[in-house]
Formats: sequence, structure tokens, C-alpha cells
Amino acid sequence: MGDTGGPYTLGQLARALGAVLEGDSERIITGVAPLETAGPDQISFVTHRKYLSLAGSSRAGALLVPSDVKDLPGPLLRTGSPHIALITLLGLFHPAPPLAPGLHPSALVARDSRIHPGAWVGAFAVIQAHAVVGAGVRIFPFVYVGERAEIGEETTVYPNVVIREGVRIGRRVIIHPGAVLGSDGFGYAFDGRVHRKIPQVGGVIVEDDVEIGANVAIDRATLGDTVLRRGTKIDNLVQVGHNVEIGEDAIVVAQTGISGSCRVGKGAMLGGQVGIADHVTLGDGVMLGAQSGVPGDIRGAGQYLGSPARPIDDARRIYAAMPRLPALLKKVRALERRVRELEGRLGIARAEGERPDDG
Amino acid sequence: MGDTGGPYTLGQLARALGAVLEGDSERIITGVAPLETAGPDQISFVTHRKYLSLAGSSRAGALLVPSDVKDLPGPLLRTGSPHIALITLLGLFHPAPPLAPGLHPSALVARDSRIHPGAWVGAFAVIQAHAVVGAGVRIFPFVYVGERAEIGEETTVYPNVVIREGVRIGRRVIIHPGAVLGSDGFGYAFDGRVHRKIPQVGGVIVEDDVEIGANVAIDRATLGDTVLRRGTKIDNLVQVGHNVEIGEDAIVVAQTGISGSCRVGKGAMLGGQVGIADHVTLGDGVMLGAQSGVPGDIRGAGQYLGSPARPIDDARRIYAAMPRLPALLKKVRALERRVRELEGRLGIARAEGERPDDG
Amino acid sequence: MGDTGGPYTLGQLARALGAVLEGDSERIITGVAPLETAGPDQISFVTHRKYLSLAGSSRAGALLVPSDVKDLPGPLLRTGSPHIALITLLGLFHPAPPLAPGLHPSALVARDSRIHPGAWVGAFAVIQAHAVVGAGVRIFPFVYVGERAEIGEETTVYPNVVIREGVRIGRRVIIHPGAVLGSDGFGYAFDGRVHRKIPQVGGVIVEDDVEIGANVAIDRATLGDTVLRRGTKIDNLVQVGHNVEIGEDAIVVAQTGISGSCRVGKGAMLGGQVGIADHVTLGDGVMLGAQSGVPGDIRGAGQYLGSPARPIDDARRIYAAMPRLPALLKKVRALERRVRELEGRLGIARAEGERPDDG
Repeated sequence: MGDTGGPYTLGQLARALGAVLEGDSERIITGVAPLETAGPDQISFVTHRKYLSLAGSSRAGALLVPSDVKDLPGPLLRTGSPHIALITLLGLFHPAPPLAPGLHPSALVARDSRIHPGAWVGAFAVIQAHAVVGAGVRIFPFVYVGERAEIGEETTVYPNVVIREGVRIGRRVIIHPGAVLGSDGFGYAFDGRVHRKIPQVGGVIVEDDVEIGANVAIDRATLGDTVLRRGTKIDNLVQVGHNVEIGEDAIVVAQTGISGSCRVGKGAMLGGQVGIADHVTLGDGVMLGAQSGVPGDIRGAGQYLGSPARPIDDARRIYAAMPRLPALLKKVRALERRVRELEGRLGIARAEGERPDDG
Repeated sequence: MGDTGGPYTLGQLARALGAVLEGDSERIITGVAPLETAGPDQISFVTHRKYLSLAGSSRAGALLVPSDVKDLPGPLLRTGSPHIALITLLGLFHPAPPLAPGLHPSALVARDSRIHPGAWVGAFAVIQAHAVVGAGVRIFPFVYVGERAEIGEETTVYPNVVIREGVRIGRRVIIHPGAVLGSDGFGYAFDGRVHRKIPQVGGVIVEDDVEIGANVAIDRATLGDTVLRRGTKIDNLVQVGHNVEIGEDAIVVAQTGISGSCRVGKGAMLGGQVGIADHVTLGDGVMLGAQSGVPGDIRGAGQYLGSPARPIDDARRIYAAMPRLPALLKKVRALERRVRELEGRLGIARAEGERPDDG
Repeated sequence: MGDTGGPYTLGQLARALGAVLEGDSERIITGVAPLETAGPDQISFVTHRKYLSLAGSSRAGALLVPSDVKDLPGPLLRTGSPHIALITLLGLFHPAPPLAPGLHPSALVARDSRIHPGAWVGAFAVIQAHAVVGAGVRIFPFVYVGERAEIGEETTVYPNVVIREGVRIGRRVIIHPGAVLGSDGFGYAFDGRVHRKIPQVGGVIVEDDVEIGANVAIDRATLGDTVLRRGTKIDNLVQVGHNVEIGEDAIVVAQTGISGSCRVGKGAMLGGQVGIADHVTLGDGVMLGAQSGVPGDIRGAGQYLGSPARPIDDARRIYAAMPRLPALLKKVRALERRVRELEGRLGIARAEGERPDDG
């Protein structure tokens, strides 16, 4: 990241984080570091209870901890929301580099595009006709912005991102390197001889505060729009098919694939490498474990797992039972033998359909 | 997409689509839209029967429908192949933007490459020595065309595509942004100490009418060629290993991985996130459900599913049976108890090997 | 690949490969080719025994074979390590193109970066402030090297690679097109309303002799570094999360995803499309079959398979047993019926909990 901020006294940090300080408010802190590597002039943090023992042996000069933590040597900065305070803390020591607005002389900006003077356009960027770029936008080198594409205020577009024609991107969006927005949806009609391409003439809408990972692919709609609603976060190498709509504040972990025309609900969480079949609806708050496969709609909020995905408790019971299946086969064969013997003793003739087999 | 075409009268559309019109041939239509959003000056379409009810309540000014559809209010354009007619319809209202041949002044084109004067080479494209680019080709910004690579007529190469040296691409191919053609195959020999790289000195051949999705990776062969045969369509984020050969008119859905030296038959269909082990042969017409894993050859045409992949009916039976496995374990334990009791009543001594266990 | 080397006599090749020649040492060989296509002036090779029969019918002018191979017509080059000899052989006929050091005039190199005069920087490359590029480095067009990034000697960076700020890359590293190094880790804290981004202020360290495939994504650490140790080979489209550490000489096959904070041991081998949950440790020498899913630590070296991953023999037993599950359900139902009948005969009353069900 850019230049580093600080140093700060513990008193300054406590005020900035809204934390309660136990320790010397004049102590100087020069940076943030993990528990294992932090030295006496650095602050570290405990955001999960499982790291408490590690915290006890840390050489850190101070610790950001949950309010109710006990038995840790000071100095401590106590707060009810250590995760949120950590965001502030990292921002203090690693402030985002300032924006130097302007167009790099090597950038190619179409005359009839509209670039806000408060935007930065880096070397070798290409911005095509009728595109619109808002204030505070950062466009890194090798970014392609197609005709009539729109990029809202304070959005960051990292190198090598491709934004095809007509794609509309909101404010404070972050698009990581290599992501592609607005590639053609994957649609063909077989004419009895060859697959004929169905023109993909729709668009892509990315609302405010969305984040899109490296080398992600988001296809444009056949007609209408592929939509990523406000606050949704997409990890690296995710595939979003044509006409998909992802609700607000969803989380889509790396390498997940969402097929065409799916609806993903608000606040849904899709673990890594999940696959969703086309035209599937996932309700608000649906959470899918990693590698799940979803062939049909899941409406109810809650956790699901597996391929095909099932409620997580069911899936775990099945996973736990599977290793016992080979022994079970043997056991049932033995039971059949014993029942046959019992039947023989009692003179019961078995019906044809109950003949033992090796199945 | 580019500028829009139209408007057209329903009579003009019926003629262009070879459709039978029921309604006013002079009615003016300005565009195509989905059933839900189409207005009275737009045409919509019913390509699947399941959308018939939606069609009944659409405000569209006309509907493109299968020939035998009943009980829909007009105007209707009836056709035996609504999917194919839809392609024509979308093309009428969204014609591909015209090609303006020529080299952008910022493009770097090696003097001893051969670029047809009817090709377009966009800003900052790089075309290396001895490369050949045919008539009607579109090369977008930031495309890299390596030494001796060849690109056939009317092929489109979107921004940020990398075509490494010697790769040969046919006619009317479409390559979406970020795709990589001709990266080194993944081959090493362990010398007892480290993995030593096996030089990857082969090529890639992409035949006519192939489509390659965004951020796809297609490795060059170790020796010989990796081959994508005519008409094959590859979705986003697919991996094609070295020395793979994919037959004509195959469909490979997003995030599928095809390992080195595989043969994929003509007309094969690989669902999303499928994985194929190396040196596997898939016969013509093999269809694999999403997330399938294929450890060995599958010769017979037909549908397969699962990891490891099985004939789809078998796979479905297993999937349906799996949730019952935990209860089955209990049931068998109970049966063992009951059989033991029966044996006790009849004075049968059980053999050692049939002792109950928790397995 | 670049220009081709040769021709060589069989005697020259035997000396260069340290192989024992059976045949005419003056015979001229012009190239290497696969068994199926090699002609009489080409040499081919048998690196696996399963190709021996193919070798018998090859028209190749000579064969590189394991020392102890029998019953093949000559001429033969015998060696104890045919894989390693093949590397030498391919290198002889396909030497790497020579490096022509210098900066392409269109490259944008920050004044306060340090580019070794023995490096090559291609067209439209961007190298930002304080970056360091070593001797013998090849930087292809459209490569972005961020502030303070470092690239060690003789490393190759193919087109469209993005190396974000502060990433440190060792010597003889190969980075294939479209790879992204140093994208933000995927980390958020939910504040009760929205997901707030946790600044990702750490780095990425890539040690010597690592290879990174096309369109790979390697995230920077939240704090500290994401680390790829010496000699590790990463295939295409792999995801490496923030703060991951991959040990020396590991192999990570295409489309595998390694979640945040994982530790992957030395010499580990991860098959294609494997997924590893966050904070998981894989011990040295752990080998995971394709499509495995790893929810928790695996310490012992050896082969594992499945999702969830199990020791490979267990996984195979389960896979083999699964197809028999549907029949097993029927069989147990039949057994219950028969036991009930036996109990009836003997006047045994079944307890409530043992009532048959459809489970």
C-alpha cells in the first residue's frame, strides 16, 4: 500500500478508535503487525478468542482487544467491535495514497467522453466515446472503458480491467486487476447443424460499494441487465453469467460460478468454488458452504452444504455416515445370511424377490 | 452493443424472420425486450413453453412464438424455430457495429507482420514479427499477438487477450477479454531435488467459428498442438491443458478444467466446473452435468453426472439415496440386535466374524 | 517458441544427453516429435512404459528410451532418466530466444525505478516509482509493475501480468499472461449494516524458481506477506488467498483455490479444482486428488481424495460402495420384513423404537 501514517501515541489511538485504554497514553506506536511478529513499538490485535493464547506471548507494545478480555498484560485498547476498530487502525497507519487528478498524456480518451476533472486516468488507459467517468475515480494503466460505459464517483479500476460498452458502475466500487465486465453471455441455439450465437445485447449494472476481485468475469445480459446490487463483494476468479441478479450485501467467495438468469438474495453468502445452475433463485440470507452445487431453488435463509446442496445438518450427517458405507455393505450381507438360516430353521420359504444378491 | 436498428413494421419483421403474422402488418416496432419489461412498441418472445403464462400478461406490442402456441392474445409472429428467429430478430434491432478498417496510430505493428488492409487494429495493440491478420479482423486495445501467430478472417479479439507466438486462429472466431492462448503447458520432471520445467514447444490451433470466453486459459502443446475444432464454444474461466483436442461443436461451460492430453468428442457438452483428468477420452456426444469429475475414459454418448461421473440415472439414484444413509446405519444396528435375539431363542451360536460392531 | 536449433547427429545428441547410443552415430536428426507423427529425420521418446507399443510402430528416426527397454528397433538413445534427458533434448532443438536487453521506447519507466541494463522491457510496459528490475529479466507488453515492486534476475513476466505495489519476486520466476500478484485479500467486517473493507496492507513474496500460470490470482496479505516458496509451480486459474504460505517445490494444479491464511507444506501436490478452507494447514508431502475439498488440517504426508478429503484408500472404498447404496436400501427393507415375520413366529413383540419406517 502507499505511504505509511503515524506514529501515534496510545492516547491518540484510543481516541481515534473510540477504545478504552489500559496503559500509558504517551507510549509511541509506529505501526500495526500480527501477534507473532509485532515488536514493542507496534500495536497488534485480537479479533478472535482463539488467538488469546498467542496474544499472551506477543511482544507487541499494545493490543487492540474485545472489551471483556481478561488476563492479558497491558497496554490494552478495549473496544466492543475489535474488527471495526481494526479497520480504523489499519487506515491510520496505512492511509490510502492521495489522488492526483488528471489524464496521463499517454491515455487515449475519446473527445466525446466525459471525464470529471477530479478523476485520474493512468498511462495507456483507453476510454471510448460517450463514456462517463466521475469525480475521484482512479483508472489504472491498461484499463479499457468501452463506449457509453459509466463509472461513478470514487470508484477504483485496477490495471487490465476491461469494461465493455454500456456497462454502468456505481460509486466507491473497487474492481481488481484483470476483471472483465460486460463480456457476452454464453448463449447459442442449435440449428440442427451448428451452434448459432444468440446476440448478447443487454448490459451490466454494478451498484455502489460493490467490490469485484481479480480475473472475475461478469457477462452482459442477453437483453436487460446483469445486476450486482449495492454492497455486494465478489472474490477472485468468480463467474457471473448473463442476466444474473445478485442482491445487496452478498458475499461471493473465490472461483464460484453463478449461471445465467440466477437470482441471489440479499446478504447471501456463497463459499468458494460453489456452482449454481441456471435460472436458480437463492433467497435472502442463504449461506452455501464451499464447493456446494445448487441444481434448484433454495428459498429459506440458513446454511446449506454439498453437491447437491442440502441443509447443513443433513449434509454433515451424510458426510459422517459415508465412511461407514463399505462396512455397512458387509454387515447387511452377513445379516442376510443369518436371517436365511433363521428362516430355514423355522421352515419359512423366501419369496423370489428376496433372493440375496451382491448388489 | 452498437447502434440500434429499426424501427420495423410487423410485416417487415414477419418477412425477415420467415414467420406467420397474426395481427396488423403496419404496426411499428422499435425494439426487443423481455416479457416482463416489453412495452406496446416492443416485441418480446416465447422460446420455452414455461414462459407461456408470463406471455399472457406481457404488455409487449407483439410476440415471437412457436407455431403451435394457443390462447395468446395477438399480435403474434409464429415460427417453427423461435430460437433461431430470435437470433435474426436481435440482429435486426442490434446490428453489429460496422468495421472501420485501419491501424490505430498507437498500435505497434511489426514491419514484417502481414495485416490485411481490411482489418482493424485498435489502440496500443501489439503485433509481433511474422504475424498474419486477415480481412475483417477486429483487434481491440491491449491485445498481444506474438511472433508468427495467425488470425483468420472476420475474427474478433477483445481487449487484453494474449495470443502467444505461433498460435493459429481460424475465421469468425470470437475471443473474449482476458483470454490467454498459448501459455506454457504445465509439465515438469522431478530430478530428485527440484521440479525441472519441460519446455513447451508446441502450438495451439483454433479452428473456424470457435468462441472463447473471458479469462480462459488455453495452454500450448508440449510438442504438436492443442486443438479446438470448428464450432466449439468455450465459456469464461475455462482451463484447457496442453495437447488437449476438443472436437467440433462441443460446448464447454464456465470454469471447467480439461487436463493435459485429453480428447473431447464432437458435440460433447461439459457443464460448469467439470474437471477431466489427464489423458482421458470423452466420446462424441458425451454430456457431463455441472461439477462432474471424470477420472477415466467415457466412450458412449449420453448424459453423465457426479464425481466420479456415472450415467446420469445411476448418479441420480445415488444422490436420492444418500440422505437416507444415516437412518440406514441405525436401522441395520437395530436389525442386528433383533437377529441376535432371534438366534438366541433358537440356540444358534454366531460365528466370530459376525460380531456386531459400530462400523 | 523461438528459432529452432539443430540439426544434430545422433552421436552429438548421445553426448549432450549423457545417453548410450545404439545405432549410427552419424545419422542426422532435425527435430523432436511425438511417437505418432515423428518422421525418419526426427527423434521421439518413450518416457512411460505404456507408450512402448506405440514406440514399436513409430516411424521416428531414433528413440530416447529408458535404459532397460527391450525389443525396440533402433536407433535408441538409452538413459536412466528419460524425462530429464527429454528436457535437454527439447532445449537443444528449441533453444529459448536470446534476450535483447533494453527498454522499448513506448514503455513507461518511472525515473526513480531501477532497471538493470541487462533487462528487457517491452512495448507499453509500465514500471512505477521505486520498482527494481534485475539483470536478464523479460517484461512483456502491457505488464504493470507497481511502486516498490521487485523482480529478480532472469525472471520472465508475460503480457498483461499485473504486479501490484510492493510485491517481491525472486530469480528465474516465470509468470504467465494475465496473472495478478498482490490484489487485495478478501476481508470484510460486518458492522451490522454493511460489509466494511479491511485494508489489505501486506505484501506478496515469490521466491526463486517459482512458476505462476495464466490468469492466476495471488492476493496480498492483510498484514505480513503471502509467500510462495522456492521452486513451487502454480498452474492456470489458481486462487491464492491472503496470508497463504506455500512451501518449497509444491505443485498446485489448475483452478485450485487456497483460502486465506492456509499453510501448504513442502512438496505438497494439489490436484486440479481442489479447494482448501481458510486457516488450514497441509503438511509436507500431502497429495490431494483432483476436486478434493479440505475443511481442516491434514498433517501426514500421503494421498488424500474427496470432499471432504480422506485418505485415498478410504475415499476409493466409499466411491466404490456408493453405487450399491440404492440397492442396499431395498435390501434392508426386505430384511426388516423378514425379521418381523420371524419375530412373529416366535412371539417376540417389537419395541416402539424399532418400528419400520421409510427412512
